[in-house]
Amino acid sequence: MANDPRSLDALFRPRSVAVIGASRRPHQIGHEVMRNLTGTGFTGPVYPVNPTADVVYSMPCYPRVLDIPGPVDLAVVTVPAPLVLEAARECAAKGVRGLVVLTAGFAEVGGEGTAREAELKALCAAHGIRLVGPNCMGVLNLDPEVRLNATFASTTPECGGAAFASQSGALGEANLADALELGLGLRMFASLGNQVDVSPHDLLEYWGEDDRVQQILMYLESFGDPVRFMEAARRVTRRKPVIVVKAGRSARGAQAAMSHTGSLAGSEAAADALLKQCGVVRVDTMKDLFTLAAAVQAGRFPRGNRVAIVTNAGGPAVLATDACAALGLSIVDLEPRTRARLGEALPPEASVRNPVDVLATADADRYDAALSAVLADRRVDMVLAIFVVPVMVDSAAVARVFVRHASRAQKPLAVALLGRLSAGAALATLREGGVQTHRYPEEAAAALAGLVHLAGMRERVYQSPPLAEVDRARARSVVQAALSAGRTVLGAAEMREVFEAYGIPMVPSRVIATLDEARAFARAVGYPVVAKVEAAHVVHKSDRGGVILDIRSADELARAFATIRRRFARGPRSRGPVRVQVQAMRTEGVEVFFGAAPDPQFGRLMAFGLGGVHVEVLKDVVFRLHPLSRVDAEEMVDGIRGRAILEGVRGRSPVDRGQLVEVLLRLSRMLSDLPEVVEFDLNPFLAAWDPSRSCILDCRARLEGPPAGST
Amino acid sequence: MANDPRSLDALFRPRSVAVIGASRRPHQIGHEVMRNLTGTGFTGPVYPVNPTADVVYSMPCYPRVLDIPGPVDLAVVTVPAPLVLEAARECAAKGVRGLVVLTAGFAEVGGEGTAREAELKALCAAHGIRLVGPNCMGVLNLDPEVRLNATFASTTPECGGAAFASQSGALGEANLADALELGLGLRMFASLGNQVDVSPHDLLEYWGEDDRVQQILMYLESFGDPVRFMEAARRVTRRKPVIVVKAGRSARGAQAAMSHTGSLAGSEAAADALLKQCGVVRVDTMKDLFTLAAAVQAGRFPRGNRVAIVTNAGGPAVLATDACAALGLSIVDLEPRTRARLGEALPPEASVRNPVDVLATADADRYDAALSAVLADRRVDMVLAIFVVPVMVDSAAVARVFVRHASRAQKPLAVALLGRLSAGAALATLREGGVQTHRYPEEAAAALAGLVHLAGMRERVYQSPPLAEVDRARARSVVQAALSAGRTVLGAAEMREVFEAYGIPMVPSRVIATLDEARAFARAVGYPVVAKVEAAHVVHKSDRGGVILDIRSADELARAFATIRRRFARGPRSRGPVRVQVQAMRTEGVEVFFGAAPDPQFGRLMAFGLGGVHVEVLKDVVFRLHPLSRVDAEEMVDGIRGRAILEGVRGRSPVDRGQLVEVLLRLSRMLSDLPEVVEFDLNPFLAAWDPSRSCILDCRARLEGPPAGST
Repeated sequence: MANDPRSLDALFRPRSVAVIGASRRPHQIGHEVMRNLTGTGFTGPVYPVNPTADVVYSMPCYPRVLDIPGPVDLAVVTVPAPLVLEAARECAAKGVRGLVVLTAGFAEVGGEGTAREAELKALCAAHGIRLVGPNCMGVLNLDPEVRLNATFASTTPECGGAAFASQSGALGEANLADALELGLGLRMFASLGNQVDVSPHDLLEYWGEDDRVQQILMYLESFGDPVRFMEAARRVTRRKPVIVVKAGRSARGAQAAMSHTGSLAGSEAAADALLKQCGVVRVDTMKDLFTLAAAVQAGRFPRGNRVAIVTNAGGPAVLATDACAALGLSIVDLEPRTRARLGEALPPEASVRNPVDVLATADADRYDAALSAVLADRRVDMVLAIFVVPVMVDSAAVARVFVRHASRAQKPLAVALLGRLSAGAALATLREGGVQTHRYPEEAAAALAGLVHLAGMRERVYQSPPLAEVDRARARSVVQAALSAGRTVLGAAEMREVFEAYGIPMVPSRVIATLDEARAFARAVGYPVVAKVEAAHVVHKSDRGGVILDIRSADELARAFATIRRRFARGPRSRGPVRVQVQAMRTEGVEVFFGAAPDPQFGRLMAFGLGGVHVEVLKDVVFRLHPLSRVDAEEMVDGIRGRAILEGVRGRSPVDRGQLVEVLLRLSRMLSDLPEVVEFDLNPFLAAWDPSRSCILDCRARLEGPPAGST
Repeated sequence: MANDPRSLDALFRPRSVAVIGASRRPHQIGHEVMRNLTGTGFTGPVYPVNPTADVVYSMPCYPRVLDIPGPVDLAVVTVPAPLVLEAARECAAKGVRGLVVLTAGFAEVGGEGTAREAELKALCAAHGIRLVGPNCMGVLNLDPEVRLNATFASTTPECGGAAFASQSGALGEANLADALELGLGLRMFASLGNQVDVSPHDLLEYWGEDDRVQQILMYLESFGDPVRFMEAARRVTRRKPVIVVKAGRSARGAQAAMSHTGSLAGSEAAADALLKQCGVVRVDTMKDLFTLAAAVQAGRFPRGNRVAIVTNAGGPAVLATDACAALGLSIVDLEPRTRARLGEALPPEASVRNPVDVLATADADRYDAALSAVLADRRVDMVLAIFVVPVMVDSAAVARVFVRHASRAQKPLAVALLGRLSAGAALATLREGGVQTHRYPEEAAAALAGLVHLAGMRERVYQSPPLAEVDRARARSVVQAALSAGRTVLGAAEMREVFEAYGIPMVPSRVIATLDEARAFARAVGYPVVAKVEAAHVVHKSDRGGVILDIRSADELARAFATIRRRFARGPRSRGPVRVQVQAMRTEGVEVFFGAAPDPQFGRLMAFGLGGVHVEVLKDVVFRLHPLSRVDAEEMVDGIRGRAILEGVRGRSPVDRGQLVEVLLRLSRMLSDLPEVVEFDLNPFLAAWDPSRSCILDCRARLEGPPAGST
């Protein structure tokens, strides 16, 4: 299938459109599409196709697409499912480059539909036709040069800078209506339906290249190709905001998504990691998406997280302050000269500290003075203005002040207009002036916080991990040897070799068969030591009494040996004599956890957390997808709830954060080098206060051989 | 000041009203109040008072309130601040029973204003006058028998079942407008201003007794009298919902609240605990408050948390499912016979599992069949219906189906209507039919979750702690002896006596001066033991090397003794010879934390958490105010994030939850019995797997003597 994003021009910038299944009957989809194409004013010719009608929408109707005299770039297909393949074949013969199939009855209904979908896919691929759908709501491009509305939606939004992709046709319909109502201008829109060809990553690439697209919005239930999505998103998010609602967050939601689109909703942790790793801003709800998109539309991004609040009422300012604090915005202390300027301009009862209270009597001039002062303050990155319309003030005049400052200032200005019913004139002025107006101060705070988040995504650098000094050949030979021997779980000595080849040492330890040998080893490394049962089939060793800690003397070591042998000598799964692993006991640091696990859709997921109860019970773990960039690894280490423990608790030294980041990058490198290592836990890894003493205390690793038949 | 809630009748059900400062000039407050009183149709006489006007609003105007011929129940005061006291004196002489002072310029401006406020307070108290304000927006009672609008708000909501109290006048104004716009009916409203007399607890009591008030809504920045608030709320929340926005959540927000009302915003943990302990539902934003209040207005409460979703589109159902799961609602499996019924009524492609997808082609009949089936399902406690208006369906007919089911069903029905702009007719039908309609499925889910939460509050039982067998006299004599000796920190032996008097044992331990004595004690309790420095001035003993754990032999004990003496023998704060506390080492359980600390506004705050790093670094602690009811203590134990650790990790037994609850109740009892104990930490307390071995491992307790002059 074509990979050049420009091939999507056939869908979004066609020179001519045929509607296959055009209908004269209102409320039929084939009618609504004709109404939208002509009503929105498509700049090229529209050809209705229907063998049973002569004229549709005052246009001569063609029995088949092949009968159309001129060239056809795009065909919109609305005929019943059993007729779609024949129509598509004729389109191919006609030289059509883009197909939008609105018809339902494909993979989403299973059986025959699945076969039909596969055939449609093959046909389009064979002829280089780009396909949107089937089972979708259509595509839209409101660019004045194009004015293409190939949907059956009942409303058409204004032309603006946002592009929107929806994996739900119904939500798309609702969202076009909401965009119009909320004043969010759209440039392009696509409903992806069953997503046989055109997928989210195609649109990211296409819209990413189009300078008329200022921001990209998506409602996703699945990613299509996660790797290509991530690659495209990493490029695009440095140039323009990408804001996503990813549904299927809950297990139950994912089930609903499966029965809905037949797509495999990947595991939530992986999906969340993917979005974080490519600079996409994920929001929880469509409402949040619209609020943030409208804020982006204003075109101003804050340089930091410092907000000034200007209000004519105390209560709403308290709510705004609470919301800002909860969202990570800083209610900054104003510069002394700003306070002085405010002091001159405002009555003595006013508050010249942040939040600036201009009092209920504030008119347009007073708001003007206050906004001028705080917007000029170098400590202020953005302003949240609250206006409760009081009986004695000309509210439209105040609104005009907001409009003027919003258009002139280089800093974002969010307006909360409270008691809208009594503020009709002010609201109309603000809307006309293109100023996003919120009903509640908390919503204004959320919009500003979203802008801060988006601004941060532009700064994100996806540095590839440095080439650590690793001994790939040595690790590979260990892995190959184990696989050749038919084993998929590595033993302790093997793991030591593999991890040490990647510069990650293991604690001094030795697998020992006799007590004398154990005593000699313990004397060499020094007491205290730890004794563990060495048996590949015992997974949770410490749960089963197979780990004895803090052995301080030769006598205690003898008792530990005896205990382990007693516990593991017999039993249905016992395999030969029990061997014991003796290792130095290291406690002078913080125990952390590193892990990797395969994910059916996203490749491999890596994990970092604090060791022990933190990872197992409190689930204080951060996930990212392999391969890790440096910023991913840094975010993993910094992202755990218990990070204060790494920073030094109650007078203890911090552990070396850089070392933990480096270990993550080396482990990711190892996964790239050795795809046979599908899963491992370093649990725990001791992050020592003296980093040169950091080491793996316990670990396990699982291999998978290459599938039969591969080379 | 009068305590009988019926005294508020003078404010909310007066037979006559005087407006002191009535004005002929529009936009003056004294004019707006006259307009509202007459325009809303107050059922008694209104008397304008103004020495400089003869007629206001076509009514004869009186120079002073004393000149009014008939009796006056309520006076609304709008004259400038310096004239308020004289007006109030005349009201007292006239026999006025209620005063609403709208005028600003009191404690909120400090100085003279504070003195003026104190005088006003004393005057009202002396004459038994109930006072709302000063510096407020007025009061409202829309009961048809009264129709009192003594505010200067520009909009008047419809009469309904909600009562609303606001500590911010500006928010009150905005909220009256929002209530009208959102169709939330209000019965009564009060803006509390500086809250000199009438406080939130007065309104809770008054509105709690009034059967016409269906629910109570509050915007609070402080509580007034927290104890009375809690007492009143505990009674009222069992009868009707109380929903509160408590502002000042962040430190910065609290600061804004202080400069705003001059009130002391209590610590956030205490405020949050208070609301949880009295069955109030706290929501984050005014928007959430309105959404939930509108849901309550429908008058149906769910019996459990099981929701069924009926939708005509997949995407919104996925979003709804995600939101329900995040909010703790269960997407229940429908009964087999419900699925059978749906299977008969719906087309074969429809989903008869929850979420029930009636498909985009669903008309009124199909929605009717689906709603009838799921509402009749005994596993379903409530229904979330999603309707995306498609081109080919009569949306008003579908809306009428929703209205019919909403009015007949005993279960809550929340409707999400997507794409509102194209759904005008449906929206109007739903509004007229009194069905709360949400723009987004997530909002509908939030409303349902709020109802579940509120329903739970009605079931809450505030059982007083049982009379544990305690030896109060023994504990009291220890405390008194320490105070008499001029000490405010208890020693180890004293704490043992006090806590054991309340049935909470301490680990076997002894304070010892010689090594021989220590060895004898260790032999008696058995190794391993712990040695700790015993010195009142060393607070964080383990941070300073004053605690040595896991001493396994007489030799190790000797070394530990020497180490502690070396570390603490000298130093500027050393006081006499170092003594060492030797105690049995107990590890066979989970270390938890119990604490109590004084709060300047709320009395004493109690805390529970897991010990060690969980409390100190991860802040995994739950707070409640003393005294605790049983349900409070249970919620504390169940409320920690790490509660899985109490329930048994990796095959270990659970600890005895009932014992932890009992300890909390005994500690609360101790705080009641011994008010001199102002602060303590039991950190850690060992919750042993064998509950009979649970004990305090370390603790500290601080006393405060009774203030000088008390008995």
